[in-house]
Amino acid sequence: MPNTARWAATLTLTATAVCGPLAGGAHAAPDSVSPGLYAPSALVLTVGHGYSAATATPERAATLNCAPTASGTHPAAIKACAELRAYGGDFDALPDRDGAMCTKQFSPVVVTAVGVWQGKRVSYEHTFANECVKNSSGMSVFTF
Amino acid sequence: MPNTARWAATLTLTATAVCGPLAGGAHAAPDSVSPGLYAPSALVLTVGHGYSAATATPERAATLNCAPTASGTHPAAIKACAELRAYGGDFDALPDRDGAMCTKQFSPVVVTAVGVWQGKRVSYEHTFANECVKNSSGMSVFTF
Repeated sequence: MPNTARWAATLTLTATAVCGPLAGGAHAAPDSVSPGLYAPSALVLTVGHGYSAATATPERAATLNCAPTASGTHPAAIKACAELRAYGGDFDALPDRDGAMCTKQFSPVVVTAVGVWQGKRVSYEHTFANECVKNSSGMSVFTF
Repeated sequence: MPNTARWAATLTLTATAVCGPLAGGAHAAPDSVSPGLYAPSALVLTVGHGYSAATATPERAATLNCAPTASGTHPAAIKACAELRAYGGDFDALPDRDGAMCTKQFSPVVVTAVGVWQGKRVSYEHTFANECVKNSSGMSVFTF
């Protein structure tokens, strides 16, 4: 067996041993292992005007795929994936953009994220007081 | 104003007048109007082994964007979008593939679809008896 193949096999076995029982299948191992062996991270992000996702029509939607590579209709997919990865896919943990100045006008905007992050289902919803506050929050993720 | 610009402006105004109040914004008008003025259709589809989405780990996930054009990590995005469009985005209405022969082995596979279809939120879940039954159902949509 050539060295490269042996390395690949070792990595695969290690990944399966570590992640298999947790993640439930070969496709569900972390995305750092190899392009064919990763936990899926695929999201639909929406933005709409209103108080809650239940009543607000999603006016804009973007797909964001982060494994094995960043893609989607999100205009800054690579940046959005990097931000989410930095905060372990925790939408609530995403920091605000520095230096944003917003009025206190109340014109609520609701954002949602549904799908899968590193093999775990995601269902996130957050309401901002207005579009400016939304754009100053979460860096690139909901800026589309 | 040149003729083209006048036409574009007329179309935009008409679309806003017809669809604005219903859909809540310029981005939420039907996708037949113009590429910049459409109701979003963006989905995350998942497949996992288990009885229900609540307990099954999503082993594979694909993004599928159908407006204004078909894209995503779904391997047959154009076909999947065409099928969904033909059945008005009703996942339950998708017909089975003709001529599929499956055993009755019980090894449940659960599929989910979340996101937005023509501006309406989607949350779909279905459990098939086994992978073969899943692949014979819904044509291209869950075949990834």
